[in-house]
Amino acid sequence: MIYERVALIGLGHIASSMFWGMKRADLVGEVYGFARSAETRQTARDIGLCDRVCNTIEEAVTDADLVVLCVPVGVMGDVAEQIAPHLKAGATVTDVGSVKRAVIDAVGPHIPKGVHFVPAHPLAGTEHSGPTSGFAELFDGRWCLIVPSDGADEAAVAKLRALWEGMGSKVNTMDAEHHDLVLAVTSHAPHLIAYTMVGVADDLQRVSDSEVINYSATGFRDFTRIAASDPTMWRDVFLTNKEATLEILGRFTEELFALQRAIRTGDGDHLHDYFTRTRAIRRGIIEAGQDTDAPNFGRTAGRK
Amino acid sequence: MIYERVALIGLGHIASSMFWGMKRADLVGEVYGFARSAETRQTARDIGLCDRVCNTIEEAVTDADLVVLCVPVGVMGDVAEQIAPHLKAGATVTDVGSVKRAVIDAVGPHIPKGVHFVPAHPLAGTEHSGPTSGFAELFDGRWCLIVPSDGADEAAVAKLRALWEGMGSKVNTMDAEHHDLVLAVTSHAPHLIAYTMVGVADDLQRVSDSEVINYSATGFRDFTRIAASDPTMWRDVFLTNKEATLEILGRFTEELFALQRAIRTGDGDHLHDYFTRTRAIRRGIIEAGQDTDAPNFGRTAGRK
Repeated sequence: MIYERVALIGLGHIASSMFWGMKRADLVGEVYGFARSAETRQTARDIGLCDRVCNTIEEAVTDADLVVLCVPVGVMGDVAEQIAPHLKAGATVTDVGSVKRAVIDAVGPHIPKGVHFVPAHPLAGTEHSGPTSGFAELFDGRWCLIVPSDGADEAAVAKLRALWEGMGSKVNTMDAEHHDLVLAVTSHAPHLIAYTMVGVADDLQRVSDSEVINYSATGFRDFTRIAASDPTMWRDVFLTNKEATLEILGRFTEELFALQRAIRTGDGDHLHDYFTRTRAIRRGIIEAGQDTDAPNFGRTAGRK
Repeated sequence: MIYERVALIGLGHIASSMFWGMKRADLVGEVYGFARSAETRQTARDIGLCDRVCNTIEEAVTDADLVVLCVPVGVMGDVAEQIAPHLKAGATVTDVGSVKRAVIDAVGPHIPKGVHFVPAHPLAGTEHSGPTSGFAELFDGRWCLIVPSDGADEAAVAKLRALWEGMGSKVNTMDAEHHDLVLAVTSHAPHLIAYTMVGVADDLQRVSDSEVINYSATGFRDFTRIAASDPTMWRDVFLTNKEATLEILGRFTEELFALQRAIRTGDGDHLHDYFTRTRAIRRGIIEAGQDTDAPNFGRTAGRK
């Protein structure tokens, strides 16, 4: 047993997947959960999410060996301030936020002496959200990045690593600034771009929504999956990973303009070379086991 | 039997899927195929693709009741010129190109009197290409847009519609200009955007390719699937649907700049409203049966 008592603060997609993942492999003793919304707490009780769903955050974290902050990045600091007086000496606080520098700056100052703070970020998730959307297999084969501070307690880091590995993840460590840049490339910029393209399609007067919807199977629908992600979570990501996201979007725009110019001037060689190069990255992702090679991701319609 | 003899010109992803789809429902008599590359012809023979694989395009189209041009949009005109002298009176020529105005302008002038030209575009495909990548179910539940010219022969259009419906498609008709605009939104602009984002990630000096690959499961990998599509096909699409694609990309850039400014100025309400609106489009696509609601498209890793 890695931890006797775990507290999940916030009971959405990641927290619920962690609960089922910890139970699947029998990694911990008891899991207490807390959500701010009474409706979410009731749903959690109805589906057996958590061994105990607490009505107060204080009850949830008192005596916990591990407290996992699973709330939007923008409220991590407030939540840390609320739980700080109730944390047990020797406990570990971690989080699952998609941004690490801002979370460390917001949470770190509230962590009492004698409590370990080990930020982390599981690179997993689907377009679904809420307490009913979690499942034990979410983290299987996916990476979890742990971002320990200088001088972090090695034993505390090792236990958290063991927990994530027990839930099926592969684990790496990384510093916060590099994490935020890598995620700006692999996640934050792509999400903003997908949201933008879907917004443009919705806005056009000359193409109806029903045309966009019916004829989406040709590229656009993959954007809509990404752009169906939780709005609050993503608002906070962009506001707290501002610099890295804007840097990548700047590079993206520059490159997009170059390709637009190639289209305008009829430079087919430039386009063909560019489109050939991008195939190699896809092959790398398949080989690394980070996606399926089945056509269309093996969607039901179109399965071979 | 809808057609006695069908000729497939070009034996890639769409042609091979058509062959298996026509055979599944026993829609046609014989299917002859031709590909310019001897290697592709050999592969087709090896896997039983087409009842006869012809060594010349002339042999393939002679006596065909339906000739389907399944070649990149940029060479449709040349191919039409080659086959024109060998077409049977009363035959129908169609195509599967992703752009319609340019194909009509390139192919139309070569079509002899007494032969019907009925352009079409099945909105289906995966990131895979080549003769071995086709499968009968590709068109199931997907739309095929037929773009008949003014005064097109109604019986010829009806037969082609019946063929596509027999392969599992839903069929609509549309004029060429509107088709090209709709596809610029649902397919062409999203593809260019995905290619661009993958190219940017590949180019960055501060984030390694292996980081991009390993940590792609957070949005980026969906872009890589789109950006793994056939480079020649896509080069031709952009060069031949230039105006509509550039128009949509212009709108996209405008909107992206507005969102970047919201990030820079910390306008969380603007971001949250925008991200909430885009969810509705996703729901429409699920309800229209154009995608699965399974998380992550029901990818194997992460299946509930």
